[in-house]
Amino acid sequence: MASSKELEIENFNEWFNDIIYKAELADIRYNIKGLVVFRPWSVFSMSKMFQMYEAILNNTGHQQVMLPTLIPEENFLKEQEHVEGFTPEVFWVTEHGTEKFEEKYALRPTSETAFYFMFKYWLSSYKDLPIKTYQRANVFRYETKATKPFLRSREFYWYEAHNLFETFEDSYQQVLQDMEITEDMLHQEFGVPFIFFKRPQWDKFAGAIDTFGADTILPNGKLLQLPSTHLLGQTFTKSFDVKYKNANEEEQYPFGTCYGPCISRIYGGMISIHGDKLGIRMPFSLAPTQIIIVPLYFVGEDIEVIEQTCLSIAEDLDKLGYRVKIDDHKEKKPKERFEVHETKGVPLRIEIGPKDVKANTVTIYRRDLNLKENLETPDLFDKVDDIAEEYTQNIREQADTAFLSKIVSVDTYDELKEQLLEKKVARVTFCSIEMDGKPCADEIKADTSGAEIRGIRMDLEEKPAEEDVCIVCGRKAKQFVYVGNKSY
Amino acid sequence: MASSKELEIENFNEWFNDIIYKAELADIRYNIKGLVVFRPWSVFSMSKMFQMYEAILNNTGHQQVMLPTLIPEENFLKEQEHVEGFTPEVFWVTEHGTEKFEEKYALRPTSETAFYFMFKYWLSSYKDLPIKTYQRANVFRYETKATKPFLRSREFYWYEAHNLFETFEDSYQQVLQDMEITEDMLHQEFGVPFIFFKRPQWDKFAGAIDTFGADTILPNGKLLQLPSTHLLGQTFTKSFDVKYKNANEEEQYPFGTCYGPCISRIYGGMISIHGDKLGIRMPFSLAPTQIIIVPLYFVGEDIEVIEQTCLSIAEDLDKLGYRVKIDDHKEKKPKERFEVHETKGVPLRIEIGPKDVKANTVTIYRRDLNLKENLETPDLFDKVDDIAEEYTQNIREQADTAFLSKIVSVDTYDELKEQLLEKKVARVTFCSIEMDGKPCADEIKADTSGAEIRGIRMDLEEKPAEEDVCIVCGRKAKQFVYVGNKSY
Repeated sequence: MASSKELEIENFNEWFNDIIYKAELADIRYNIKGLVVFRPWSVFSMSKMFQMYEAILNNTGHQQVMLPTLIPEENFLKEQEHVEGFTPEVFWVTEHGTEKFEEKYALRPTSETAFYFMFKYWLSSYKDLPIKTYQRANVFRYETKATKPFLRSREFYWYEAHNLFETFEDSYQQVLQDMEITEDMLHQEFGVPFIFFKRPQWDKFAGAIDTFGADTILPNGKLLQLPSTHLLGQTFTKSFDVKYKNANEEEQYPFGTCYGPCISRIYGGMISIHGDKLGIRMPFSLAPTQIIIVPLYFVGEDIEVIEQTCLSIAEDLDKLGYRVKIDDHKEKKPKERFEVHETKGVPLRIEIGPKDVKANTVTIYRRDLNLKENLETPDLFDKVDDIAEEYTQNIREQADTAFLSKIVSVDTYDELKEQLLEKKVARVTFCSIEMDGKPCADEIKADTSGAEIRGIRMDLEEKPAEEDVCIVCGRKAKQFVYVGNKSY
Repeated sequence: MASSKELEIENFNEWFNDIIYKAELADIRYNIKGLVVFRPWSVFSMSKMFQMYEAILNNTGHQQVMLPTLIPEENFLKEQEHVEGFTPEVFWVTEHGTEKFEEKYALRPTSETAFYFMFKYWLSSYKDLPIKTYQRANVFRYETKATKPFLRSREFYWYEAHNLFETFEDSYQQVLQDMEITEDMLHQEFGVPFIFFKRPQWDKFAGAIDTFGADTILPNGKLLQLPSTHLLGQTFTKSFDVKYKNANEEEQYPFGTCYGPCISRIYGGMISIHGDKLGIRMPFSLAPTQIIIVPLYFVGEDIEVIEQTCLSIAEDLDKLGYRVKIDDHKEKKPKERFEVHETKGVPLRIEIGPKDVKANTVTIYRRDLNLKENLETPDLFDKVDDIAEEYTQNIREQADTAFLSKIVSVDTYDELKEQLLEKKVARVTFCSIEMDGKPCADEIKADTSGAEIRGIRMDLEEKPAEEDVCIVCGRKAKQFVYVGNKSY
């Protein structure tokens, strides 16, 4: 068996483009550029991810709603920063049948301008607050950059939560809760490590006071933004005249937040993080087929006995609640059949051949550790339970190790440039993530292949020493920031 | 307590328009006409319905995919009947940002022209068949008729299954399976009675050989079409050049079917069928809150003991897996608080007042039977289990009874006109649901307030006697058909 080092992906782009087809995840042959067809193997897992996310949003006091996909242009024009941020990317509906509409309608690129339009009807008193809502939605952005299935397509699939609070402090607490939800889902459930960064002021969501983004690191060393959460302050409540009366009957504007976990993108990040040269891997709970049983036939052997044994084991595993299938492609060689399931990331394979039937044994292959083992058949069921139990933790720990190995601390500007060439994400001392730090950020960008300041980390407090200076300008360093190349 | 007769809805339209707001199901104040905002109370149930439908589609061998919302005009033009049927209703995307697209893109009104475009890539050999796929989708139709939340809006939410088979017989078996799925979901799970009709040839889905539609009957006697399933024959496979090689290496066009359960519309039908003057009702499993506990406070009584009792009962019920809430609106009168939950269709209410606390009793109110009962507290939990068990069956049986009472058999044309005025659905002997029967259908339509032939029923064989003649033209009757007024 190859070691985990030998299995590491070398050319990520090539690997990703190949795996989409080999593992039957998506199809880019649809006849509109940038719009992708997602196939059953990925959709099964994404549907589970949607359900898990829905449960946690409900459990944290969010209520699900469904708003229209179309947003009138007039709503869009209400928030100037938002307009500038999103208008270039909007798909516009202008006709129905053979007639023109009097007004243009946007396909939602995000739904603030629909939610806030409704909030004014739903909010009147402080007793109505907090309002915590979310919807499952497909959103549309006409990206001018290169598209990539899952990671960046012109239609994508997410939950978007839109919340209102009485005080700024309450809204900040929500942002912290969004980070916890992200940890529970992405890291614990999906095994995807990330750091939540407070973004620099020049890299915010259009209309936000502060943006917090969760970045993971792809096998090519590039940062991929996964969910982000935003402090919107009173920007949208003022633009849309959303207000309430407080206990003293005074009119107030509430404070908003929004949080956008994009399931199709998280899936793309997840398979990239856990993937290797053999194919994709995914948490045990998300695998469409969790256990594949492969009967091994040889000339002259009794096929029926082998098939019967496979069937009986499959039935027992099915009764235990596992998603199990038998691979009955007799026409294919064992190696060929093994590869299909390794490529698709089936967590566990059970091989049963003529020797096994005689000896009452089975051979198992586990995809988390890339390990084969021969077992007495009666021991199989406890072993499967054990693997199911620890599988996700194993791939999460591997991902965590790889993630940490991609981050380095550097002290000098030259070292920074070197490490970025080595595809690392670098921690450096930096002057400021307020607007006065932008010239230094621009300098880094210009001196490297476009590396960006991703912000200051939110999961732990990192304070520079009194004497630390900005790695670029030499001014006193206010914080540590992380610098890396962004992907998608 | 009012009897079930006294609770019957008198003016359905008015009731429906009111209940949307009173039960906080939807909001029509969004600023695009015909596009509705769905609120948490309905969305919670619809999300459950989606999950239940997804499970049954998976269990019947369907695989979930996700196709783009946009469909190029060129795909649309490939199937002429389909074009004529749907083009007048299409929303067109023509611009992005400030630029015009070279081609127009339709917001899918249904997705045959996207699925069949992809099927040609996915199908090559008879070994690939059957292909059974479905997607969860929002679809768009610019209806020129009056819109109504849930029942007819310009954006709606459904599953659409698109399947391919080697033989016509296989495709017909699929249509029968779609009817079984509809029975399992709509009738058994959601308590909604219906009849599956084979539609007359003049009332088919654009591009179908035969259309089968499930009709329920609203409280106003009008028929509401719920899921429909269609035999597409080789119409779309030929238009889109979808073919495969059979075992003899000969090229063949497969036979298609499609099935479209629309969750938002089923929800609308469901609350209408189960609704009464008090408000909506829904199956126990779909209720966002299944049990509401209402503490009853009176001046001078010990509020804390009552609250503690409510909390302890709520915790126990929560542990048993029920969705339970406490109504702590102390400022409102009991009657007012009761009404809110009756309007929203909370299946079970538990009232606890000072006398109850002393006597260790509770009063329960069950919405299925509109019945109050006083119980010893220790008996409560078994009672709740019993109600949870039988609740859906009770409302289903009530709906079945109401449904049957709205159908009559008539023998003469005059009687038909009379019964239609009485808001009944009438069974009559009829010449033909092939195109030669259309003049008779047109005559009925003209002589009544637009009543239509809904087709021949699929759940049982009804054969006219040798001497029976068409109620309109007097020709020999080939079948019994059902006639009624269509709503939405």
